[in-house]
Amino acid sequence: MKPAAPPERSATLSYEQAGVDYDLIDPLKVAAQRAAAATGAHLAAHGFSEVAASRGESAYVVDVGPFYIASIVECLGSKALVADEMQRLTGRSYYDGIAQDTIAMAINDLITVGATPLVVQAYWAAGGSEWFADAQRANALVAGWKRACDTCGVAWGGGETPALAGIVADGRIDLAASCTGLINPKERLSVGDKLGPGDAIVLLSSSGIHANGLSLARKLAERLPQGYLTPVTPGLSYGDALLAPTVLYSPVTEALYKAGITPHYCANITGHGWRKLLRHPATHTYRIHSVPQVTPVLKFIQQHANQDDREAYGTFNMGAGFALFVKAEDAQRTVAVAEALGVQALVAGQIETGAKRLIIEPLSIEFGDDALQLR
Amino acid sequence: MKPAAPPERSATLSYEQAGVDYDLIDPLKVAAQRAAAATGAHLAAHGFSEVAASRGESAYVVDVGPFYIASIVECLGSKALVADEMQRLTGRSYYDGIAQDTIAMAINDLITVGATPLVVQAYWAAGGSEWFADAQRANALVAGWKRACDTCGVAWGGGETPALAGIVADGRIDLAASCTGLINPKERLSVGDKLGPGDAIVLLSSSGIHANGLSLARKLAERLPQGYLTPVTPGLSYGDALLAPTVLYSPVTEALYKAGITPHYCANITGHGWRKLLRHPATHTYRIHSVPQVTPVLKFIQQHANQDDREAYGTFNMGAGFALFVKAEDAQRTVAVAEALGVQALVAGQIETGAKRLIIEPLSIEFGDDALQLR
Repeated sequence: MKPAAPPERSATLSYEQAGVDYDLIDPLKVAAQRAAAATGAHLAAHGFSEVAASRGESAYVVDVGPFYIASIVECLGSKALVADEMQRLTGRSYYDGIAQDTIAMAINDLITVGATPLVVQAYWAAGGSEWFADAQRANALVAGWKRACDTCGVAWGGGETPALAGIVADGRIDLAASCTGLINPKERLSVGDKLGPGDAIVLLSSSGIHANGLSLARKLAERLPQGYLTPVTPGLSYGDALLAPTVLYSPVTEALYKAGITPHYCANITGHGWRKLLRHPATHTYRIHSVPQVTPVLKFIQQHANQDDREAYGTFNMGAGFALFVKAEDAQRTVAVAEALGVQALVAGQIETGAKRLIIEPLSIEFGDDALQLR
Repeated sequence: MKPAAPPERSATLSYEQAGVDYDLIDPLKVAAQRAAAATGAHLAAHGFSEVAASRGESAYVVDVGPFYIASIVECLGSKALVADEMQRLTGRSYYDGIAQDTIAMAINDLITVGATPLVVQAYWAAGGSEWFADAQRANALVAGWKRACDTCGVAWGGGETPALAGIVADGRIDLAASCTGLINPKERLSVGDKLGPGDAIVLLSSSGIHANGLSLARKLAERLPQGYLTPVTPGLSYGDALLAPTVLYSPVTEALYKAGITPHYCANITGHGWRKLLRHPATHTYRIHSVPQVTPVLKFIQQHANQDDREAYGTFNMGAGFALFVKAEDAQRTVAVAEALGVQALVAGQIETGAKRLIIEPLSIEFGDDALQLR
């Protein structure tokens, strides 16, 4: 089978068209963030305090004296729907990879603040007890979860496996992971206070779409001539390509610490794509001079969804799953540490003094301060 | 309106009939527990170790040197469906109470191991962005979540508010909470190693059904003459009574510590009702000589579902939301500490040498070792 040619005149498919309306969610998010911020003071009664700079970061950090504790809960999102459809089409279960995706959502966020992940808890809420009756699928989920814990050196503490008929859709599963870690020694804290002009931007390669942008990717499948079985490259279907498990980046951040490299800041490139590089609230210009190779499935989506580079890089990771902001002198060694672990890496640019914006020079695109309203 | 009389010859409604089939879930749970147990060894690479006795307990505990860290993720279950139906019937939102229920599921489990809860993360997965457009409901959820954090003195760290169309049912929300706490000083660890004959069993009162047994309670609503609006007591509808928020017990366990009382063990009385008193793996006989007053809504459910005491106490909390196993000499003071905080308490019985069983003398019922297969 030949990869399908992009449609000639099809309309652009944007993330908003794919069904997630942030305008409806954002007021709640803001109200919740405000209420949450007011609770940080409770820690004083226990003799502790929050790391205020972690509010709005990917993980919440508390100073408990000898070290910091970071914690998080993250959900997989809608990638499981692709696994379900591909299981229907091919007969095999993809839930081993889905398990890794779910853990990656939590771990890759937790490590941005400099934490070593220690414990993962599983949240597997099924639409009914029957979900668990498919032994192949259930065993794949367990095996994949275990393997991802092994890769990251975390203990799987336990979790919840409720059957929630009427809340979770029939035949579906809502997957999430919570994770607790330590920032130890405390100097590993990377909430961006040391981030500044001259720092290098190192991008770690992604394996594909990871677990963000799936609403659009699923919508696109409806337009493709053979749906999920449409080839992306010869022998690789769109569904299989989408289901490549998310890279777990904690082995890299742990190895960097052992190599004496403490990033000034990290950004997990998830929803909003490269706009996540603008995540830190400080005013800096982020100039990208080299972009990594785009994973075939993301190039395929861009073409078939008829997106220009600005839309694509503002939505998807486009080959870069995680960004490390390090001292310029550490940049090449950061690349070497990652590549020794099998994760391709690239010194992609640097931070400069200037207005808050991201300039991707090779593509002649730019995102301003307003590109990422929500942190 | 007069409270409805129990039906004369209606069939008994058991938990299994209400739609949760543990036979389908349990093999996965066992496989997951086995895989999870194998990951505990990863902590050694970080210089830490798991508290093996916490495997199978309500929260997972890691020894990080100066103190223990406990973590957990818990889901609300199907109580939100009652809130949705009551909102349809009465026009008001019950999500402030639902927020408390969700946090209670996590906090009341976390404290069983002796932990002080420090950080809560919110997991609010809606069936679509539209869920968040109902501002009254969204604000109630935020306000209730904040208030519960205030009650427990925990920091609300953040969370996830995904819109998961196709996974979470349309118009519904899947609510869960993760919680991280410290056992500090380490002597507060209560995983049951000191539990033994002579210990007193102190029961803390519940506010109603809490958030367990709702599948059955919802099924029962279909049988009632006025459904959720059927009065339980004059002026109190079945729906309102069900929606009484779960008691948050961490103020009690924190006050006990300040009073110099360290429980030998705790059991959060949730699914499987009083069978949870048999939770600890050791072989002891638990003899109950006094039972607390049964909350009216639970008495109502027992009558209308035509359950005998064995079925009712094996399913619901029947007025006892949390069990503290303390030294006999601490029992009365434990009651006093709880009641000073407005939580009714009762010295209900004691632990004796003997086969593993729970004897509820006032009701002439008994549960054996086989009553709680899964921990």
